[in-house]
Amino acid sequence: MLTSTNSKGRQGQSGAQGVHDGFVHLVGAGPGDPDLLTVKALRVIEAADVVVYDRLVSSAVMELVPANVRRIDVGKSAGHHPVPQEQINSLLVSLAGCGLRVVRLKGGDPFVFGRGGEEAIALASAGVAFDVIPGITSAQACAAAAKVPLTHRDLATGVRFLTGHRRQDEVLDFDWAGLADSETTLVVYMGLTNISEIAIRLIAHGLDAATPVLAISGATRPEEVRLTSTLGRIGADCQTACLAAPTLFVIGAVAGLVASMGCAERADGVARLLEERETACVAAE
Amino acid sequence: MLTSTNSKGRQGQSGAQGVHDGFVHLVGAGPGDPDLLTVKALRVIEAADVVVYDRLVSSAVMELVPANVRRIDVGKSAGHHPVPQEQINSLLVSLAGCGLRVVRLKGGDPFVFGRGGEEAIALASAGVAFDVIPGITSAQACAAAAKVPLTHRDLATGVRFLTGHRRQDEVLDFDWAGLADSETTLVVYMGLTNISEIAIRLIAHGLDAATPVLAISGATRPEEVRLTSTLGRIGADCQTACLAAPTLFVIGAVAGLVASMGCAERADGVARLLEERETACVAAE
Repeated sequence: MLTSTNSKGRQGQSGAQGVHDGFVHLVGAGPGDPDLLTVKALRVIEAADVVVYDRLVSSAVMELVPANVRRIDVGKSAGHHPVPQEQINSLLVSLAGCGLRVVRLKGGDPFVFGRGGEEAIALASAGVAFDVIPGITSAQACAAAAKVPLTHRDLATGVRFLTGHRRQDEVLDFDWAGLADSETTLVVYMGLTNISEIAIRLIAHGLDAATPVLAISGATRPEEVRLTSTLGRIGADCQTACLAAPTLFVIGAVAGLVASMGCAERADGVARLLEERETACVAAE
Repeated sequence: MLTSTNSKGRQGQSGAQGVHDGFVHLVGAGPGDPDLLTVKALRVIEAADVVVYDRLVSSAVMELVPANVRRIDVGKSAGHHPVPQEQINSLLVSLAGCGLRVVRLKGGDPFVFGRGGEEAIALASAGVAFDVIPGITSAQACAAAAKVPLTHRDLATGVRFLTGHRRQDEVLDFDWAGLADSETTLVVYMGLTNISEIAIRLIAHGLDAATPVLAISGATRPEEVRLTSTLGRIGADCQTACLAAPTLFVIGAVAGLVASMGCAERADGVARLLEERETACVAAE
């Protein structure tokens, strides 16, 4: 089946709904730096009636929401569970049903580990008009910040994003042989808890223990921390460095380009940081 | 090695260079729709002394370059070869050496099939201060436009980007068994020429011929065309539809969600398009 669209057609998908009906924008808030929002995302945020957001949206991005716009936090807050996905879906449908212009703001890109698909299906099923505005995903933000290309001639013919997080008690049941491909950059989202196991399995399935690994937590945010390591050392190094979630791992030869990119570590920064981390680790025990 | 950065540190990486020295921004121009530029990309474009761009940057984005800014086209134009990569690298170094603020504008994201890594290495080697501003890559733009999530609970635990393009006479030497993973969404960039072979190999290595495939050419641009098909039919369907490069393919169960998303084809659009395409195909023969 072949379809042609033009921007007018895409914008006007409300079709059956009248102009007074609500609309939901599923919007990627990007990695944290508000400068990495798209122009379109910024515009719909500024024109929203209500913004539904969660914990991966940075406070710097939330500061762009006009003061008179209602905000609904559906994310995890200290001591509280996040709002279940089904309730978020219902909330979006209800808000749109009230004729509101709803911005559903999600960290990164709504369609890359963002559960945006579930919200989109719920909206479509309920007949709510919506669109999807992509955002810079963490892999791109980390790559740009650290100046590490995700693909690179002769080093990586492709790139693969996977999540290292599993629901409680579930095992990491990847096709490890397929993952252990030295020509593909592997980006692991939400992998801090399981990075040791992931590294061990990749090595067991043929990746060199010397494969470079770059770990970045809080990319593009003031608290950004980068760790350069190897597949053989990353588990231990993460424990030493006491990195905080969300941390992203870039595994592959491209991660070894950090040294060529003029991103050499500043000695004072490392010393200060290790000192800070040590205090934090001790405090957390 | 552990590094801490803050936005001030990142901005100020010119370090050894004085403020009068040049600077290169490697900027992702996104898929075509200028609304999908990042806020940061738009700002550096507006402040540039010179913009170096190629054929994947849309004319709508180029219209945002202020009239007094010099533009250098290093892309393919009718009857001409593109400027070799080494010459582009030298050009960027030279322009920065003249003290200019250079924007190197690349379609999509500079670090996803953009050869941005090669330019970054050349700049770093020459001691030129530069940064990288990520852009919405084609996979994200297509996913958002067609409302097809790249990852989705129970359908795709991850996503993989690869290029279907090879230098002349090179064979497609992928790890086909690893690629034929029904739980990973496969996104093929620049695959129009080789999609038949790719589909045949994936089926031979275990993917179901009924696996949904979404092909999009010109995503987010006025000429956007979408084709929904299956792995078994995509080769033939692409020939019939006479799609134009660049076309992106999304292969996997998530592509089957198109029907659930209220993106049903408009019959008149299909009829008109097939008619147009037929004329174009005949004309091209």
